[in-house]
Amino acid sequence: MSNQKYGAGIWHFATFVDRYATDGYGPARSLIEMIDIAGQVEDLSVVDINYPFVDPSLSLDTVEEALKRNNLSVIGITPEIYTRQFSKGAFTNPDPGIRRLANEMCNDAANVVRRFGADYVKLWPGQDGWDYPFQVDHRKLWQMSVEGIGELASQNPDLNFVIEYKPREPRCHMSYDSVSRTLLGIERMGLPNVGILLDFGHALYGGESPADSAQLAIDHGRLFGMDVNDNFRGWDDDLMAGSVHPIELFEFFYTLRKNKWEGVWQLDQFPFREDSIAVANGAISFLKGIERALDKLDFEAMQDAQDRQDAVTALRLAREALFTSF
Amino acid sequence: MSNQKYGAGIWHFATFVDRYATDGYGPARSLIEMIDIAGQVEDLSVVDINYPFVDPSLSLDTVEEALKRNNLSVIGITPEIYTRQFSKGAFTNPDPGIRRLANEMCNDAANVVRRFGADYVKLWPGQDGWDYPFQVDHRKLWQMSVEGIGELASQNPDLNFVIEYKPREPRCHMSYDSVSRTLLGIERMGLPNVGILLDFGHALYGGESPADSAQLAIDHGRLFGMDVNDNFRGWDDDLMAGSVHPIELFEFFYTLRKNKWEGVWQLDQFPFREDSIAVANGAISFLKGIERALDKLDFEAMQDAQDRQDAVTALRLAREALFTSF
Amino acid sequence: MSNQKYGAGIWHFATFVDRYATDGYGPARSLIEMIDIAGQVEDLSVVDINYPFVDPSLSLDTVEEALKRNNLSVIGITPEIYTRQFSKGAFTNPDPGIRRLANEMCNDAANVVRRFGADYVKLWPGQDGWDYPFQVDHRKLWQMSVEGIGELASQNPDLNFVIEYKPREPRCHMSYDSVSRTLLGIERMGLPNVGILLDFGHALYGGESPADSAQLAIDHGRLFGMDVNDNFRGWDDDLMAGSVHPIELFEFFYTLRKNKWEGVWQLDQFPFREDSIAVANGAISFLKGIERALDKLDFEAMQDAQDRQDAVTALRLAREALFTSF
Amino acid sequence: MSNQKYGAGIWHFATFVDRYATDGYGPARSLIEMIDIAGQVEDLSVVDINYPFVDPSLSLDTVEEALKRNNLSVIGITPEIYTRQFSKGAFTNPDPGIRRLANEMCNDAANVVRRFGADYVKLWPGQDGWDYPFQVDHRKLWQMSVEGIGELASQNPDLNFVIEYKPREPRCHMSYDSVSRTLLGIERMGLPNVGILLDFGHALYGGESPADSAQLAIDHGRLFGMDVNDNFRGWDDDLMAGSVHPIELFEFFYTLRKNKWEGVWQLDQFPFREDSIAVANGAISFLKGIERALDKLDFEAMQDAQDRQDAVTALRLAREALFTSF
Repeated sequence: MSNQKYGAGIWHFATFVDRYATDGYGPARSLIEMIDIAGQVEDLSVVDINYPFVDPSLSLDTVEEALKRNNLSVIGITPEIYTRQFSKGAFTNPDPGIRRLANEMCNDAANVVRRFGADYVKLWPGQDGWDYPFQVDHRKLWQMSVEGIGELASQNPDLNFVIEYKPREPRCHMSYDSVSRTLLGIERMGLPNVGILLDFGHALYGGESPADSAQLAIDHGRLFGMDVNDNFRGWDDDLMAGSVHPIELFEFFYTLRKNKWEGVWQLDQFPFREDSIAVANGAISFLKGIERALDKLDFEAMQDAQDRQDAVTALRLAREALFTSF
Repeated sequence: MSNQKYGAGIWHFATFVDRYATDGYGPARSLIEMIDIAGQVEDLSVVDINYPFVDPSLSLDTVEEALKRNNLSVIGITPEIYTRQFSKGAFTNPDPGIRRLANEMCNDAANVVRRFGADYVKLWPGQDGWDYPFQVDHRKLWQMSVEGIGELASQNPDLNFVIEYKPREPRCHMSYDSVSRTLLGIERMGLPNVGILLDFGHALYGGESPADSAQLAIDHGRLFGMDVNDNFRGWDDDLMAGSVHPIELFEFFYTLRKNKWEGVWQLDQFPFREDSIAVANGAISFLKGIERALDKLDFEAMQDAQDRQDAVTALRLAREALFTSF
Repeated sequence: MSNQKYGAGIWHFATFVDRYATDGYGPARSLIEMIDIAGQVEDLSVVDINYPFVDPSLSLDTVEEALKRNNLSVIGITPEIYTRQFSKGAFTNPDPGIRRLANEMCNDAANVVRRFGADYVKLWPGQDGWDYPFQVDHRKLWQMSVEGIGELASQNPDLNFVIEYKPREPRCHMSYDSVSRTLLGIERMGLPNVGILLDFGHALYGGESPADSAQLAIDHGRLFGMDVNDNFRGWDDDLMAGSVHPIELFEFFYTLRKNKWEGVWQLDQFPFREDSIAVANGAISFLKGIERALDKLDFEAMQDAQDRQDAVTALRLAREALFTSF
Repeated sequence: MSNQKYGAGIWHFATFVDRYATDGYGPARSLIEMIDIAGQVEDLSVVDINYPFVDPSLSLDTVEEALKRNNLSVIGITPEIYTRQFSKGAFTNPDPGIRRLANEMCNDAANVVRRFGADYVKLWPGQDGWDYPFQVDHRKLWQMSVEGIGELASQNPDLNFVIEYKPREPRCHMSYDSVSRTLLGIERMGLPNVGILLDFGHALYGGESPADSAQLAIDHGRLFGMDVNDNFRGWDDDLMAGSVHPIELFEFFYTLRKNKWEGVWQLDQFPFREDSIAVANGAISFLKGIERALDKLDFEAMQDAQDRQDAVTALRLAREALFTSF
């Protein structure tokens, strides 16, 4: 029997808003409601929680209690460094006062990580970047990106920080836009406690091969976490994992297992119009099929085909395992 | 002196929200506030207004008064057929009751068009489409798309309806996704009062050449309106017009003038992080440069180069006109 | 047992050249060699052949003989209206003399269709379009596109002509760029013997959903042929069918069967670096799995889910059929 | 008066072939013919030459003579590590014998660099990468990519080697795909004589901002060369520089000047259907306009706007300089 743990960002169970449906895709939900919904997903063990909570009066004790009754624990805390006050950037905001606020919010999040015994502070600086040609001094912007996270990691040497890169949105161009750029930045920080949270979909729509991105992060000793979803390679659609790119998803998990990477398989999906429990169950059910397919796959024959760069054989092996495991 | 009229969607002067900055990029603004901001833009004559108003108690009289004091008139009314109740579609909603609601809202909007003496009801069915493979019966979805708008146009033969197509967002795929698809649908309706509102940016990021799209719509007698903005060809960024693709923007307006198309030059921009007046002024100032460049351009020499499909000469002529008109 | 016929473009068995490997990805092959290789593919019944032959001395009798000994028949003839003399366009060439040559070559190809009892002349006007902003008069270019093919179809009312649209390559923008544009053009021709050859990969990288494209062409009575392959949605990679997008490929064939569309399932793949027999067999083996999955799929339940636009259920049904048929 | 030197890849003056126009876009040209054509371009001083020469009997002396009579010198030598024998890869070929051949060819090219007193060996390993999911072991592929070039640079410590990264083509995914990945690889080599040749168009269609890419390479001390062209952000179209993205091209050169980067401004264009001299002159004439615009631009005001990340002001300043310099 599998010991694989599954997780999800708690926002998976929120209702969403966008620039058109400004009244939201459903009535707003409290964090406690989201946790109680998450608890109804089969096989979900851990969640990633945004901080600060939407309801500032909500206590950590109440959250903990809700988690406990749903058999959930916390893998990470995601500070909300992309809301209104940070709309012109968190670590790269032109205003040093806002940069200070971002630092403080992340330090607060670090304390919540400690409180819950979580694995990491997750940093997704979605407003750090640019929109227009000529808008920024690219050297300074990148310096602020690197120094802002380096400072945090130095202030909290007992904790891990993970960076979730993404090509764009909400900014037209995010400063941490790719696996390689993020690794360059992390190398420049020179600290052991900064790594990558690799989002399968971000790699995909950034033109990367997610399996290659995972391997590169692993080879740099920086793959600290991951989550999956799917999209049409042009945008971060956050669709149900396996719905569009099952073969590349399989290759991604093949790469993790080949490298004996062990960690939670997380979901980062945005079911705008669907039942969020059904979408989570649907994804996990597919991931369990992938687990079985990995057990069945002939790793030696695959390695042999890859050493010859023989795509036809490699794909046949992959198909024989994947398309017979459901 | 130019008689060219300039316009804008009134949402240009709203504050925005997206799925991350759920508290918005600034404090919410009332329609009246937006109109008063629009009034501060130099050279703005007309606006397109969403309906129903966010504040349901707001009277048409109050709106009219605000418009009047800002020297603005109404070019079109955009019914909000993409908010929560329509999140699974307006004309293509699987629930016939919701389709009925969409029809009613658009008929209400038609009355507002009459009230303001505007030019058209603008339909942007952003939630009509699909997200996943296998999700919809494509024949039925397209039938509903065509019949829904055909019904409206039949019910209001005294008014024009314009369809603003767009490849995607918020749906992963919109049913009115391109100029050609929309023209196919309009031809099937077979009604004189349905046309296209061509958004430069939608054409661009849909892989079209906006000048070609304009020509095609004109040749079908269906170019009823247009608006401009800019993007990076991968998403509907709604940036300031001319900021990224000045040459294709110039070609677009060249095509309009060559065909003696006369109508308002409108803006559809989303200045998330910028001052909306400055962005509107910046765009209009560039468009006025394009007007001057069109006056200067040697249309005969251009036609001659195009007849030979001589790109080098055509681009030289375009540059000589455009890059010397500022 | 299945009666499904499989086919391929004979170029599948050529060696290829591109702008970098100008000495080719292997030694050049004669048409007869290609046919003899095609004959080694399991389950291949028909081929599409380019005309004129590379070797002008090759007789139709010799080709027929080679086909016969390999149990192959001809489904279509593809006139080479995209080689050097047509590099500035075939039907849209600015030189009327070259347009005349294109017409003549296609009429010659029509005779070869008659000689082989094939189904159609296949037109892929890859050089018809434009590269630069301002390069062409879009009205005239489209007129020439439509009239050139309309003329051919009028001259040969006993034969079918199929247009294979494609977004781009080798032109930066092809005039027949999408399913909708091509249908608009065909409607304008107003002739019964012009239809679409739908290439799965062209639809995919043009931002279409291939299943939707097929449905639209069927609903216009114009789906005359199809072929499959795969790509990464950004270019016409002509990879092995099913290697990247198995689910959308399944949806494509689901749409064909639902509409009782009967015709050959063809391959249009370019195995630059792979053994072409292995790639053809690999693709056909996957397509046979899709056939079995279609036999297994619960069409009623699928229709019911689609009528509700219930993506989660529809995808579950698709997966249950597809991932258990190998 | 400007001292800016202009250059071009000598292939700019070749005729081209692709997978469709297999007979080429014009009659083949010898290297000597290309040089004589290059000599007719106004203001061209240097060229980059492919090696080995198409005609193996061509002597270096004859080439030198042709260069001299055209007042051209050599900036770099590009070994042809992407032709038939390398179609499955040069540095990453699964066959160690072919990897050895690649090394030898590059060492030969190094000798030609010495002979001509050129600046660098330019490495564009276009066949190094993968096409299909599961095709390669990503760790090994990247190791071979890094070690292959590292070995060359170690063998020739007196020379510079520049890597021209590119997202894809002819491979579906190139191993040196982006500025960041290439910098990661170069850092791992740890050698002073390996840098980047930044192609504006490659950055653009890889989703980078070319100005940002240039800044990053400069900040790592690795911007050894550059060339320009244009495209539609989806493919390496190698169009005439400035024809589509004049503003981002201006930002790119602004970044070079701001950093006091001095080097040749090179062209890498593929005028498939145009007169190559006209396209080169057209591009250089635009680049000279950019030079004048840089002289006119208020760098201090621009820096100030960028420090505030004020896009509207920055773009206004850029436009005021660029659109008045022609």
